[in-house]
Order: sequence, then C-alpha cells, then structure tokens
Amino acid sequence: MSNTRPEPPYYAVIITSALTGDDQEAYDAMAVRMAELSVRQPGYLGRQSQTGADGRELTVIYYRDAESITAWKRQTEHIEAQRLGRRKWYADYYIEVARVERAYGFERAALE
Amino acid sequence: MSNTRPEPPYYAVIITSALTGDDQEAYDAMAVRMAELSVRQPGYLGRQSQTGADGRELTVIYYRDAESITAWKRQTEHIEAQRLGRRKWYADYYIEVARVERAYGFERAALE
Repeated sequence: MSNTRPEPPYYAVIITSALTGDDQEAYDAMAVRMAELSVRQPGYLGRQSQTGADGRELTVIYYRDAESITAWKRQTEHIEAQRLGRRKWYADYYIEVARVERAYGFERAALE
Repeated sequence: MSNTRPEPPYYAVIITSALTGDDQEAYDAMAVRMAELSVRQPGYLGRQSQTGADGRELTVIYYRDAESITAWKRQTEHIEAQRLGRRKWYADYYIEVARVERAYGFERAALE
C-alpha cells in the first residue's frame, strides 16, 4: 500500500479482531469474496494487515472519503457477511473510523 | 487497549515499519526505553501492535489529541531515538496521524 497512498486527507478504518476458529473454511471463503468485492468499491485505496502469534489481527483499510466507507458498510453482500461474522466467526472486533490528517515516511533505499 | 478506549474524537498514529536487522540488541533496548517514556507522555491512551511473519510491523498508538502527538515527537530522548532509527534500524517506515471520528465494537462474551 505504501506506494499508492494519496496525499491526506483520506480515511483509515482500523480493525482489531480475533476469530472464534469455528467454521474456519467458510470464513476463509467469505474473506476472499469480501476482499474481491472491497477492492472494487469506489473510493477504496488499499489495505494492510498483520496477524500476531496470538491470532489477533490488526488491519487498516484506506478510503478516499467517509462516504465510501458508509457505502461499503451498506453493501448488500457485505451486510450478510457482517451478520455471519457476529453469529459465528468473530470472538470480538473493534472498528475505528479515522480521518488521516498528515502522513510522512522514510525509505532507506532513498538514501543509498 | 480495547477496554481503555475513550469516546471519539481521539487520535491514532498508524505506523507501518520494517527493520534492517542491524544492531538488533541496541534497537530492542531503545524500544523498551521508548515504551517506558511514551506511556508517561500526557495524552497517551494506549497502543496495539502486530508483527507479521514477513517481519513487517503494524502499530497503532492512541492519543487524546493532536497536541500530545506533537509533544511526543519533540521529546528530547525520542528525537535521538528517531535519528538512530533512520541511521541504523529502520529499512522503512510510514506514519499516518489520524483523528478517530467514530468507533464501535462487538464482543461475543456479551451475547452469551
């Protein structure tokens, strides 16, 4: 995602989650389907995600604006995925919607 | 961090980073020192971090307001740590300062 980030302002959705481990195969299939759909969502900019040794996942998904996030939350197939997620797959999750106000970086290659 | 999050608005600093692996012992010692200092910083709310199998780290640090972030960035010992980080420890990093506008969560235990 680092090469595709636009200039701020843009939006970040920070998702902290842990799975129950129930029905993992169906979860994996749904996650693939949601990934396919989400990248086609207008305003989607990219995502990054890391899963720790404890199984907790930290994901940040980037969007052009708040309206794109609302539209994705209300997408019909995604609503069904969210419902199944709460019923079966997620032990817990926490979602924060944040407006990126500034950003800066460093790359070693640029110095050498 | 999930139990200590306040009501929005508050701030999140999203840090994506990869280490060079050089001088790892000194890096680890510095990371411990910075963690000690940072929790004492006024406005600090908490942090979460996950490191992937590829060694990339995704960290989110929470603050009460933008001023607290600026104050931490200018803290004398932290400035020296940043300088050493760019000289030796970081292959790359990207830092995004974002204002959390809304947040919501789900915990399975609450349903059972």
